[in-house]
Amino acid sequence: MRFWFMLLLAITVIGLAPATQAVDIESWETEQGMRVLFAPAPTLPMLDVRLTFDAGAARDGDRNGLARLTSNALAHGTADMDADAVAERFEAVGTQFNTTSARDMGIVTLRTLTEPDWMAEAIDVLTEILAAPAFPEDDLNRERRQMLQALQRQRQEPGSVASRRFYQLMYGDHPYGNAPSGSEDTIPTLTRAEVESFFRQYYTAGNAVLAMTGAISREDAEALAERIAQALPEGGRAPALEPVPKLDGPVTERVAFPSEQAHIFMGAPALRRDDADYYALTVGNHALGGGGFTSRLFREVRTARGLAYSVHSSVRPMAAEGPFVIGMQTGTDQIDEALEVLREELQRLHQEGVDPDELEASQANITGGFPLRLASNSDIVQNLGMMGFYDLPLDFLAAHNDRIDAVSREEVHEVIQRRIDPEALVTVVVGGEE
Amino acid sequence: MRFWFMLLLAITVIGLAPATQAVDIESWETEQGMRVLFAPAPTLPMLDVRLTFDAGAARDGDRNGLARLTSNALAHGTADMDADAVAERFEAVGTQFNTTSARDMGIVTLRTLTEPDWMAEAIDVLTEILAAPAFPEDDLNRERRQMLQALQRQRQEPGSVASRRFYQLMYGDHPYGNAPSGSEDTIPTLTRAEVESFFRQYYTAGNAVLAMTGAISREDAEALAERIAQALPEGGRAPALEPVPKLDGPVTERVAFPSEQAHIFMGAPALRRDDADYYALTVGNHALGGGGFTSRLFREVRTARGLAYSVHSSVRPMAAEGPFVIGMQTGTDQIDEALEVLREELQRLHQEGVDPDELEASQANITGGFPLRLASNSDIVQNLGMMGFYDLPLDFLAAHNDRIDAVSREEVHEVIQRRIDPEALVTVVVGGEE
Repeated sequence: MRFWFMLLLAITVIGLAPATQAVDIESWETEQGMRVLFAPAPTLPMLDVRLTFDAGAARDGDRNGLARLTSNALAHGTADMDADAVAERFEAVGTQFNTTSARDMGIVTLRTLTEPDWMAEAIDVLTEILAAPAFPEDDLNRERRQMLQALQRQRQEPGSVASRRFYQLMYGDHPYGNAPSGSEDTIPTLTRAEVESFFRQYYTAGNAVLAMTGAISREDAEALAERIAQALPEGGRAPALEPVPKLDGPVTERVAFPSEQAHIFMGAPALRRDDADYYALTVGNHALGGGGFTSRLFREVRTARGLAYSVHSSVRPMAAEGPFVIGMQTGTDQIDEALEVLREELQRLHQEGVDPDELEASQANITGGFPLRLASNSDIVQNLGMMGFYDLPLDFLAAHNDRIDAVSREEVHEVIQRRIDPEALVTVVVGGEE
Repeated sequence: MRFWFMLLLAITVIGLAPATQAVDIESWETEQGMRVLFAPAPTLPMLDVRLTFDAGAARDGDRNGLARLTSNALAHGTADMDADAVAERFEAVGTQFNTTSARDMGIVTLRTLTEPDWMAEAIDVLTEILAAPAFPEDDLNRERRQMLQALQRQRQEPGSVASRRFYQLMYGDHPYGNAPSGSEDTIPTLTRAEVESFFRQYYTAGNAVLAMTGAISREDAEALAERIAQALPEGGRAPALEPVPKLDGPVTERVAFPSEQAHIFMGAPALRRDDADYYALTVGNHALGGGGFTSRLFREVRTARGLAYSVHSSVRPMAAEGPFVIGMQTGTDQIDEALEVLREELQRLHQEGVDPDELEASQANITGGFPLRLASNSDIVQNLGMMGFYDLPLDFLAAHNDRIDAVSREEVHEVIQRRIDPEALVTVVVGGEE
């Protein structure tokens, strides 16, 4: 039986009542325009490196899947070193290496021991890959096949079908309408030349953020940043994404699916990552459905009516307006009642805001969970990458809890009214008959 | 694309060339006979608690699934507090709580912040559950249903089918023949009285190991251990498991399955956790197939013959003789060739042992990876639990690398010859036609 009570969806932080460790963050920019965030962490003899590029599915254009294929194929080596040789060299020095992508980002991560010979070899392999990836045709074929197989599996899962359709309806022709996993139509047609060109255009020094945490000196961190920046293609920052158009009314879609449970998503584009409304909306969402067992949605949907085993809401800020999302599963005979409850609770929050107890409990839960969110070097380097990518201030972590605590009931109410329109939501239901 | 180069299957450690942090371990026993291992970790304001009981599927007897059902149902509350109330109280103080079970162990874990009020509440809920779990009939019904559904899913996966059958053939009537997930025959017949009785018999103070790491004092750790020991049923240690009988010849089974790839497991019972042969066998296994891209099996199976995308071998020491296992997937038309290669490589290792370069590279890889294996409090508390459960010496972590480095070629060869008989292996192939 698994109970994971991660209270906090928000990125939480530092500086609260119980003794905490501060994360010292240093930041600079290399000559090539690569932003760097570095947090020394001398305790363990290892180094975490996280490179984020503005190279996610939002940059696919009409070639959906191109960002993912590029990121998947990046590790397959160079003209001098095939995929097995890459793997073997990393393995010989105990290095963990990974590439992935999402809507906003293409991500390269590396964890190495700081023993000098081993770290030097790990950095050599990393920079060789970044300097001249080969994207061999054989490997691209295998990646395309695996991406198509992954899509096939998604088609079997009602939750995946619902999520994919939810984003399509929220974002339409906006770049966020592109699924990171690509589409059956486009994947087979993506060419090696397109992958190469995508890499040259978006995996550039000026379009990159380098986050590092570990047991190295500032001097070594600077030298490492310099090597990585020099290895990357030259080039500046990708242009800002266009704003997401507001929905002008409700959009509801039911998709038949032979599943026992219906999967429901309800929500709308809501918030950019750098928007100051983040704090008030996070507190309001926590009271609605972000706080698990103590949230309004949970009490009404599960405890009072027994409609579902769980229900959840979240705010997912992104480079352009990321979504506010409510998600749940329910029996196919209870879909209408479930939708009604979700709408009622959202209407009530919209009209009344949160009460003083909810405000206080939500603030305490969000701020109190900091140590669980920054407990490992992986957590820290992930936060640094996020902060650099979205141009958040360097005191984001240190000031976060004060900002959450400073939110008033009036602000929560005002922000919910301005950011979430209960009359203009996308609702997707997958399950049961049409 | 995911590359995880976790070099080390073995539990690795401390004290090697690059600067490392030592884990200070304190140990004592409570009056009730509960063993305690505690590692102070003052940096982060949190506490990890891991309780392991000799209460895994090896204690199922002829009621296969009973250990898992008990462990699953444990979190469902007490007479005064149902499952939702448990969840809500943990959540209100940001606590993560989990119960699970394997062949050897029943495991209860808890992570709490050390803010005094929150920690006190987390410990209150934990001890209330341990003192008087209710095992309500409704919840047991749901758990039985979910366990049966999990078995159904396993039946669809050739790898799960192969693994289950592999253990059955290796262990037969020995308690390790019981799958932790239970069986379709027994699960529906398990009664509440049996669960209650299993709990009273095996979740006792004398049958428990309490591992703790976090920002609390020795004094607080002792008080906490006392409270947990008092909450648990009284009782001593479960009797030692009987030794696993040696296989007296090869056992091979082919199972038809409509899958593209055939799943192969090959191996035999090999080693107890407290056996000093562990170090030499770990080094030998690393050279054979534990070292990923640089191993003999990988080079022969993938690089030389292209039979599989990956192949791997491991040693899994347990309370009684845990298995040595080789696992791979291959095309259904290449099964015979693949089996031949695996047997040849094992024969060659048996006859020749490892060469000097392999010995050195294996030792360096195993010992060098320590920091990646003990990088988080979760890692540390898991190691403490393992050490306490298997009665390993308190210097296990600190001395591990010296013991690996002390292994000679002669020892590796001698231990492989004594521990692994290439003429008495279980081989299971699932996939293709019969």
